[in-house]
Amino acid sequence: MDIKTYMQTVGRQARAASRAVAAASTDAKNTALLAMATEIRARKAQLLDANAQDLAEARANGLEPAMIDRLTLSEKGIESMAQGLEQVAALPDPVGEMTDLKRRPSGITVGKMRVPLGVIGIIYEARPNVTADAAALCLKSGNAAILRGGKEALHSNQAIAACVRAGLAAAGLPEMSIQVVETTDRAAVGELITMPQFVDVIVPRGGKGLIERISNDARVPVIKHLDGNCHVYVDERADPAKALAIIENSKTQRYGTCNTTESLLVDAAIARAQLPAIGTMLAGKGVELRACPASLAILREADIPEAQLKAAVESDWTEEFLAPIIAIKIVAGLDEAIEHINTCSSQHTESIVTEDYTRAMRFLREVDSASVMINASTRFADGFEYGLGAEIGISTDKIHARGPVGLEGLTSQKWIVFGNGDVRA
Amino acid sequence: MDIKTYMQTVGRQARAASRAVAAASTDAKNTALLAMATEIRARKAQLLDANAQDLAEARANGLEPAMIDRLTLSEKGIESMAQGLEQVAALPDPVGEMTDLKRRPSGITVGKMRVPLGVIGIIYEARPNVTADAAALCLKSGNAAILRGGKEALHSNQAIAACVRAGLAAAGLPEMSIQVVETTDRAAVGELITMPQFVDVIVPRGGKGLIERISNDARVPVIKHLDGNCHVYVDERADPAKALAIIENSKTQRYGTCNTTESLLVDAAIARAQLPAIGTMLAGKGVELRACPASLAILREADIPEAQLKAAVESDWTEEFLAPIIAIKIVAGLDEAIEHINTCSSQHTESIVTEDYTRAMRFLREVDSASVMINASTRFADGFEYGLGAEIGISTDKIHARGPVGLEGLTSQKWIVFGNGDVRA
Repeated sequence: MDIKTYMQTVGRQARAASRAVAAASTDAKNTALLAMATEIRARKAQLLDANAQDLAEARANGLEPAMIDRLTLSEKGIESMAQGLEQVAALPDPVGEMTDLKRRPSGITVGKMRVPLGVIGIIYEARPNVTADAAALCLKSGNAAILRGGKEALHSNQAIAACVRAGLAAAGLPEMSIQVVETTDRAAVGELITMPQFVDVIVPRGGKGLIERISNDARVPVIKHLDGNCHVYVDERADPAKALAIIENSKTQRYGTCNTTESLLVDAAIARAQLPAIGTMLAGKGVELRACPASLAILREADIPEAQLKAAVESDWTEEFLAPIIAIKIVAGLDEAIEHINTCSSQHTESIVTEDYTRAMRFLREVDSASVMINASTRFADGFEYGLGAEIGISTDKIHARGPVGLEGLTSQKWIVFGNGDVRA
Repeated sequence: MDIKTYMQTVGRQARAASRAVAAASTDAKNTALLAMATEIRARKAQLLDANAQDLAEARANGLEPAMIDRLTLSEKGIESMAQGLEQVAALPDPVGEMTDLKRRPSGITVGKMRVPLGVIGIIYEARPNVTADAAALCLKSGNAAILRGGKEALHSNQAIAACVRAGLAAAGLPEMSIQVVETTDRAAVGELITMPQFVDVIVPRGGKGLIERISNDARVPVIKHLDGNCHVYVDERADPAKALAIIENSKTQRYGTCNTTESLLVDAAIARAQLPAIGTMLAGKGVELRACPASLAILREADIPEAQLKAAVESDWTEEFLAPIIAIKIVAGLDEAIEHINTCSSQHTESIVTEDYTRAMRFLREVDSASVMINASTRFADGFEYGLGAEIGISTDKIHARGPVGLEGLTSQKWIVFGNGDVRA
């Protein structure tokens, strides 16, 4: 079978299965999720064997250590996959919720019902745990799923897929509700993202390059996360202790996450008072400071080691460093801060540190990013921290879902009308 | 200036203006809308002149009478444009609404704020009143807009655009918030739908051909309405009087609207009892009946004039007739009805007629369309009937907005976090 025919078959099967999943009871979906967890624990040895095969090939092909690390399934990793399935089973079912019911003058009662999107395509790289994770979120939200993992994880993914299918079968749900693509041919991705008749939305998880390629070529809507160039703005009326704690946490808690702060804006009015302590703290943690001319002068006076100080270049204002590097700019006040953010940010997450009510509320309203915060670390931008219970990704798009996407982001709302023989006048 | 450069300039201006519109007060937006209404009334003579010029060219080019009709601006039409602007001014402002605020264990308070999408591109055909209507909805929802009307309405649209700009200026809002494209070159549409850096969403309004072309070529999300193949299903336990009234209203109130019923499904158990009266009523209104073999036999016995009876062909089940034609099929019960609808419908609007509670609720939940109704006419699927106060279109998409799209559909929600110096553990 050629790739196009194969993917069309996968798509047709997913579309057919999606109706049964959409209509499945909460109980059936939870039974399937718990059965998948049981299968994953029971087949631990097979999972480790399959993963060992992937790892051997990855090493033979000279994959980078970071990639090998992501690819590795440990006993602990297998147990946490099983626990993840149980956690999704414990979440409330979003499907079927009826809201906003209102009686209209015509006599009808109109409202909304939350419904699955239909068929979701997930494209990801070499993390096999995403297979179980994405399967759980799609199933719980009443969607069929087509999962396409990185070719390096093929054997691991197929072993996990067998557990998923066994769980579905145990609950009497169609095994085709969750399909893991069995070919490593890259053409499969091209087919998956151009079958609007079978796929309702694509969620790519991976590096910026992968996501840009998919967005450019897709003929299906994409819920995407491009990059996270997050900002902290220290306002004239910032509490210096809060500013210091928030910058430390936002920048240095983890360097490789998308909600890590990459740019720091400081109000000129308090730069001389607060920047030396901030710079000293960051430098002490090993962070390189890429500073605008005004902040560079202040930081030099504060005896920051010259090796950690650099003059910022234009590209630093838009860069997601994912490293112990921060761009620092002194701004004339709130207007310039908002303007800079709305121009340079990737619209992921921004935070203002201030005790001034009116400026805090202006920042909240006028900054056009998926998450906007007052006096809080940008590291909070996360589905679990927001109380979603799970996260399929963080969207930097503006339509449908912004920011952390949980079960609700995998659903939509249809209109429902209760009548009594009503007709339109 | 070539078309690409021109459209990029328009896009850049819209993006720049969008920040001011997003931050504008409700009062400023309403002032602008009321000033536009005043301008439209004051410039009635100029609007009629501009329209006369378009009409003269349209007649010289041999446009169809239906097109000429849509293009014509009467005195009454001008007054109703002005009233439309006043009605949008009277609607609640969706922007800035904060909802779902919850305290999290970490100490932060997390919720959502409703925000504009940014820049909206509207592509429409020869109805000049859409210019005022779309301008009003985009402005009230805090968005900048780029409007691209049909080339036949160029002079009318430019005259309306002058009123819109005057209204914006009167309220101190940037005139570039609402731009009407000044070229009739079709390449402008191609540019508009491929500038994601300047345009956040495209709303095409027009025939299916236009919308399919735009969807295929767009590199920007599209909120689209393709077609309306709506169904009424008469269940075994339908109240015959309600069924007759709902079918009459759904099919015959207006033939050319997208929420008009095009297919009738009848439960085999009551087809012999109810179909003769239904068929006689429809035939009496001049509707042509395209029937499946079983319903054809019943309708023949009921003495429906042979000229109005036809054997249905496969394509009738998926066709949007927009004419006094209905497809009729007898089904074995609810399962077959839902299966038929989910396979053949355009997912616009479907209604079940039944007194059976469980079947009514199954239909409501399992039918995958933008509007699903119990004992009500499909003609109710409309932004005004649903209480939205206005309608930019009816979406047959699944993500972002389904069904009638009002002001809320032109907005999104960002996450907001209130902290007190909180950091992530």
